[in-house]
Amino acid sequence: MTMAEATVFEALESNVRGYCRSWPTVFDTARGAWLTDQNGKDYLDFFAGAGTLNYGHNNPVLKQALIDYLVGDGITHGLDMSTVAKARLLETIRDLLLVPRGFDYKVQFPGPTGANAVEAALKLARKVTGRTTVLNFTNAFHGMSLGALSVTGNAAKRAGAGVPLVHATPMPYDGFMDEAEDFSWMRRALDDSSSGLDKPAAVIVETVQGEGGVNVARAEWLRHLAELCSARGILLIVDDVQMGCGRTGPFFSFEIAGITPDIVTLSKSIGGYGLPMALVLMRRELDQWAPGEHNGTFRGNNAAFITAEVALRHYWSDQRLEASTLAKGAHIHDHLTALTESFAGLSTRGRGLVQGLVFADASQATKVCRVAFEHGLLVETSGSYDEVVKLLPPLTVTEDEITHGLGILTRAVEIVRDGH
Amino acid sequence: MTMAEATVFEALESNVRGYCRSWPTVFDTARGAWLTDQNGKDYLDFFAGAGTLNYGHNNPVLKQALIDYLVGDGITHGLDMSTVAKARLLETIRDLLLVPRGFDYKVQFPGPTGANAVEAALKLARKVTGRTTVLNFTNAFHGMSLGALSVTGNAAKRAGAGVPLVHATPMPYDGFMDEAEDFSWMRRALDDSSSGLDKPAAVIVETVQGEGGVNVARAEWLRHLAELCSARGILLIVDDVQMGCGRTGPFFSFEIAGITPDIVTLSKSIGGYGLPMALVLMRRELDQWAPGEHNGTFRGNNAAFITAEVALRHYWSDQRLEASTLAKGAHIHDHLTALTESFAGLSTRGRGLVQGLVFADASQATKVCRVAFEHGLLVETSGSYDEVVKLLPPLTVTEDEITHGLGILTRAVEIVRDGH
Amino acid sequence: MTMAEATVFEALESNVRGYCRSWPTVFDTARGAWLTDQNGKDYLDFFAGAGTLNYGHNNPVLKQALIDYLVGDGITHGLDMSTVAKARLLETIRDLLLVPRGFDYKVQFPGPTGANAVEAALKLARKVTGRTTVLNFTNAFHGMSLGALSVTGNAAKRAGAGVPLVHATPMPYDGFMDEAEDFSWMRRALDDSSSGLDKPAAVIVETVQGEGGVNVARAEWLRHLAELCSARGILLIVDDVQMGCGRTGPFFSFEIAGITPDIVTLSKSIGGYGLPMALVLMRRELDQWAPGEHNGTFRGNNAAFITAEVALRHYWSDQRLEASTLAKGAHIHDHLTALTESFAGLSTRGRGLVQGLVFADASQATKVCRVAFEHGLLVETSGSYDEVVKLLPPLTVTEDEITHGLGILTRAVEIVRDGH
Amino acid sequence: MTMAEATVFEALESNVRGYCRSWPTVFDTARGAWLTDQNGKDYLDFFAGAGTLNYGHNNPVLKQALIDYLVGDGITHGLDMSTVAKARLLETIRDLLLVPRGFDYKVQFPGPTGANAVEAALKLARKVTGRTTVLNFTNAFHGMSLGALSVTGNAAKRAGAGVPLVHATPMPYDGFMDEAEDFSWMRRALDDSSSGLDKPAAVIVETVQGEGGVNVARAEWLRHLAELCSARGILLIVDDVQMGCGRTGPFFSFEIAGITPDIVTLSKSIGGYGLPMALVLMRRELDQWAPGEHNGTFRGNNAAFITAEVALRHYWSDQRLEASTLAKGAHIHDHLTALTESFAGLSTRGRGLVQGLVFADASQATKVCRVAFEHGLLVETSGSYDEVVKLLPPLTVTEDEITHGLGILTRAVEIVRDGH
Repeated sequence: MTMAEATVFEALESNVRGYCRSWPTVFDTARGAWLTDQNGKDYLDFFAGAGTLNYGHNNPVLKQALIDYLVGDGITHGLDMSTVAKARLLETIRDLLLVPRGFDYKVQFPGPTGANAVEAALKLARKVTGRTTVLNFTNAFHGMSLGALSVTGNAAKRAGAGVPLVHATPMPYDGFMDEAEDFSWMRRALDDSSSGLDKPAAVIVETVQGEGGVNVARAEWLRHLAELCSARGILLIVDDVQMGCGRTGPFFSFEIAGITPDIVTLSKSIGGYGLPMALVLMRRELDQWAPGEHNGTFRGNNAAFITAEVALRHYWSDQRLEASTLAKGAHIHDHLTALTESFAGLSTRGRGLVQGLVFADASQATKVCRVAFEHGLLVETSGSYDEVVKLLPPLTVTEDEITHGLGILTRAVEIVRDGH
Repeated sequence: MTMAEATVFEALESNVRGYCRSWPTVFDTARGAWLTDQNGKDYLDFFAGAGTLNYGHNNPVLKQALIDYLVGDGITHGLDMSTVAKARLLETIRDLLLVPRGFDYKVQFPGPTGANAVEAALKLARKVTGRTTVLNFTNAFHGMSLGALSVTGNAAKRAGAGVPLVHATPMPYDGFMDEAEDFSWMRRALDDSSSGLDKPAAVIVETVQGEGGVNVARAEWLRHLAELCSARGILLIVDDVQMGCGRTGPFFSFEIAGITPDIVTLSKSIGGYGLPMALVLMRRELDQWAPGEHNGTFRGNNAAFITAEVALRHYWSDQRLEASTLAKGAHIHDHLTALTESFAGLSTRGRGLVQGLVFADASQATKVCRVAFEHGLLVETSGSYDEVVKLLPPLTVTEDEITHGLGILTRAVEIVRDGH
Repeated sequence: MTMAEATVFEALESNVRGYCRSWPTVFDTARGAWLTDQNGKDYLDFFAGAGTLNYGHNNPVLKQALIDYLVGDGITHGLDMSTVAKARLLETIRDLLLVPRGFDYKVQFPGPTGANAVEAALKLARKVTGRTTVLNFTNAFHGMSLGALSVTGNAAKRAGAGVPLVHATPMPYDGFMDEAEDFSWMRRALDDSSSGLDKPAAVIVETVQGEGGVNVARAEWLRHLAELCSARGILLIVDDVQMGCGRTGPFFSFEIAGITPDIVTLSKSIGGYGLPMALVLMRRELDQWAPGEHNGTFRGNNAAFITAEVALRHYWSDQRLEASTLAKGAHIHDHLTALTESFAGLSTRGRGLVQGLVFADASQATKVCRVAFEHGLLVETSGSYDEVVKLLPPLTVTEDEITHGLGILTRAVEIVRDGH
Repeated sequence: MTMAEATVFEALESNVRGYCRSWPTVFDTARGAWLTDQNGKDYLDFFAGAGTLNYGHNNPVLKQALIDYLVGDGITHGLDMSTVAKARLLETIRDLLLVPRGFDYKVQFPGPTGANAVEAALKLARKVTGRTTVLNFTNAFHGMSLGALSVTGNAAKRAGAGVPLVHATPMPYDGFMDEAEDFSWMRRALDDSSSGLDKPAAVIVETVQGEGGVNVARAEWLRHLAELCSARGILLIVDDVQMGCGRTGPFFSFEIAGITPDIVTLSKSIGGYGLPMALVLMRRELDQWAPGEHNGTFRGNNAAFITAEVALRHYWSDQRLEASTLAKGAHIHDHLTALTESFAGLSTRGRGLVQGLVFADASQATKVCRVAFEHGLLVETSGSYDEVVKLLPPLTVTEDEITHGLGILTRAVEIVRDGH
């Protein structure tokens, strides 16, 4: 390919574009944990499509299956028709995800994005319960369409709605209150009939808040939440769009707590290859949808069904990926902990392969990302004040690549903190 | 492949599934205007992914480009990073779509669905104007997420929201009132400061309502609408998700009226190959987004950028596709008109390659579709009462295929109407 | 009394004050159709407290009863306790208003204002039907609290809400569309399940829109409306706050159409003496309120119950008031008609003792009111553009007073139109 | 008067009636702290019109002024015209309420109920700030119209709205969390831009929650709240409808905390005689109303202006009423405290002449009220579970009457608790 004009983005693409501002180059190809720009410069990717590329860029196993499918003129676009590819995927979900965990979920194919899965989940919860209010958590991120945005925390993104966002009430996430017991307010508000909090249809929660700043909910907090909901007939929705598909170790991030949510949303890495796809899992008795009640054009991205199925079969037929994720996460965690001991004003938190380096001086986090980019590492900030450098490498990253990336990160911290 | 178990859908997939109920088989492969099920039976596809497959299934020109890109490890998933594939697509949009028509639009890549494009368009219109109300039209269909659903007409789909849908007020679409002048109410309501209609941010309209029953807005009605909006500082959003990309003849369906909408949404066939992708075009001065104000994971489905670019270059570098679409549309229209002359209680309407056969007895339309399916033709109903058989073949369908499909349709009408 | 400082209003009273700007003096006493300011200047009152003083200021019959009650230490403030005064009033309502007309209404005492009666009516309609949407009409006025404001037309007043006003959709009032048949849009929108108009709980309507510009709904239009609602299970609420209590002739303004609304709101003149009081009448089977579900402190203004009862007994035991109202209305109408024949750009409309003089040049209406004030007549404008001089004298006004007031009005028109 | 038919209420009055169920008799006359039913039985009134009759029933000083005014044909109903009576009242408010306390408030006359004052206050706060969200508190009560109801806590009353109540978020009131520091959640939620809590226009608070269960906010809590609001540019609205006019001792209940709210609502006892009237006080610079932007028929209940003025002059020209209120409150408090020491499962709380007796077994509170009624004492329950017997005697009650009433109350507790 000839060189693309970088200026076309400035001239023609909307100001809304974002990541391209953090990483000002024009990318061309990618493989595994590496991106290459059109000048041939390589970048180690510790962002992985915001958690969409858990199996790496253009994973060769998935790639071959995808190309074979395309070559064979398999159905590419299938609306919600029954297809061979979908049947295979459903069987694989049943055999590898549901049955082994004792889950009796029905599977919905909503539009192919996390936001759409969240919209579907909220609609279903409201329909089933006949209630309108949903409880969400501080620093939550669930998407940009109107329903998903109403349960998202970020003020700037909320303001983009252009209408007041209603029917959602935020509650403090684990750790938000700097106290051991974070449910005192929520429980009292739910149980006093004059609290002014209308009985909610559902609670929606992420087990680790990626966009919100790598905030990690403890297993006991999640269990407590599940019990609160269950005892009051409130549906528990776990939004596992970013933390599911093994990001924190087990396939479902909530497995650590031993809970069974009423509804689960999946997207990002579920398709395996970075192709748009999303799922909603719901307890069988909650599947009260009427046919076509929530539809959409791209619910049948069969190319993604193929890569989804192969990814599940290749990576989730045994425990190896989970074990390696936890080991790699520990590797990163140990390194970051050491960093926090070397530099004041740093702390770290995370679970599995989502790890955060938190800067007391938020502006330093952005600077670290910029320096890291210049040195060939892609990392991004998150959190209310962009105060957290978030590490989200592919789960298939090698130990050497981790070591390489952490070296660049350490160098970037040194440059930002020490000026050299 | 071995035979897929059809029962897995019943056992595992949510009741919300829809098209698979109309076409009860398991599809496997597809090419051009044809789908083949796992038993080897062929079906002529006059639905084309609800307008997503204007260039046919697995179009060989696009397929080759896609496979080449995959083989070469081109960026598959790119968030909103700048990529070579995106630069090429933007240049192509500029050179083939915008410059020749004198349009000065900026291009936004929202999430990869029509609903997401609509959500983005509504948010932008509200943000830019500082107003909340949007006018939509009777029988409109714009999507299932909360913002898009609020401007959608269908009562059953609206009820799925589980919350009251607000900030939108419906107005009569062209022809809804059986009168020549349909804007009398809208104009009076806008111009009387005590009408109770809050001044709207925008009007959102489809030029032909596909889901709504193949309702066709006249060019002069669209011009009148554009003038009404322009004179009052109300933004005009044309939702060209289904009717754009040449479905009605010209690339943009509103070209027939000579108008320039303030905002245009595109999805479905814009990606060319049925891969999820969407665009929002907005007048340059309306691009008041802050960076990241409307984001989302799957805005950078670069595989779709490749097929989008190739589709534009291959089909829209000259007038041939537009001309053939109009000719094929005339072919179908003539045939349907003859049908309406043979059978009482039938009428027809459409534009280009979206054509409808309307049954005074709505139940017959569903029966016709079922019989057509049994005879190897995929068509679907639309309209408030499912009273319209909608014909939406790929634009690349051949004249012979059209003749074949119309033959099956005619036979199905005969069977339903005459009982044999 | 000594002279009050006029400046205290400027210094201390909120800018929201309104009528005092139109009539810039300090009033002191009042009797019948006359107000006297603290300088001893008399003003003939053709506004009557915006229809609150149908029986005149300090009507001596009511006054004596009120003073007797106060002297006897009758319950003044009674919440919603059962009192002798309330029992008497209920019996009187039953005997004089309900039984003779064959109405089987239950009676609710909401807070003592028209807005509160409307809020109660809307809540009840939504509760009973389980629906949220209410249809209102262009140029409607129903009050300033959030629920009542949402069904009010005036844009400036709506903007005061500070939140988007939702759950209401305006429809064209009789005459709004300059066409004979005004229900074509409403009927089509209600009957097409894909119109985007959610099935409403209720329609709320005034039979004559006082604030809206003395817009008069024809009896056949009201009948048509009642039939539309009845056939579709939509509740019909007649807001008779301003037009009830005999303003248009019969006690209930809707009697002219022979309809029986599901819910009726009354306030303004129901208390007789200008004391705050309101009622909601509802068909017996609609009385699905739980005890205390809509409460409020001032539901038991027993002083008003006394004057209400006496007013009903004194004025509504026979047909004389109705007859005299119609005669006086005809007197005014004839005079205004003559005026419209003398001056171009004038027209007139009204019913009973609500009559409007409409100016094609809206600014003249305000000028006429100002000149009339200077000449000792209180009249006010109404309508979207304040283009209507509204005449709303007490029903007890004498023919001589009418003649006197019309003389001043005519003089004011001459001065404004001819400059002398 | 002859005996009123008690059955008319059952037959004709809506089921929504409430207090008449607790006190099943037909009241006729009243004087001071006593009500008399039509059988001649006397009841000592420790409810005082839910705080509306702070100066007692038919207070002779006010009564004489009212009768004089009526006899003299003073303006009774004045819309918002300037009148002598209003000027006098404004001057009195200025001289006795504002200037001595250093308050620079403008005065708005909204519709004559507390709910209307709250609606006006919320509208103004939203208009001035351009924000929509309001924070309210658990167990709050602010009224039944849609805007006021949205900030009210009680679930049953909220459900009556028939639409989701939005734009308000509840926060824990002082003591709700059984912790010393109740603002931790509110402060964190306000200060984290990703908390999901949109920046509020205002906070609305009662200093003592009468309906909510006689919950008493400490002075330091109120000061803390005022500081939180002030530091963040959030308006503080004190709803002093029930606790103002001396109920807790000082005229404004918030004087105890030394704070100056941005907006204050007054109603109930402000009119003095139980006549409907309400006020909104707002800091001068917040008076950004446009003329007529919030109007209403009964804003000029001039009869109430007369009794309001006389009440202020008679009772608030010196400190005696405040002192006696505190002394009487202490009397009651001591007695209730003694009761709680005699009976397990009782506790007491209150301020000035609003005192509550709290029953651990909520059902006993209702029984105590019923027995008290039978013995000639009117008291009512409040609180989420009706677990609090609320004592709200007129401020003009005598020490002997207090002793008498407490005797009945004690007897009722004994009967309910000991069975004799």
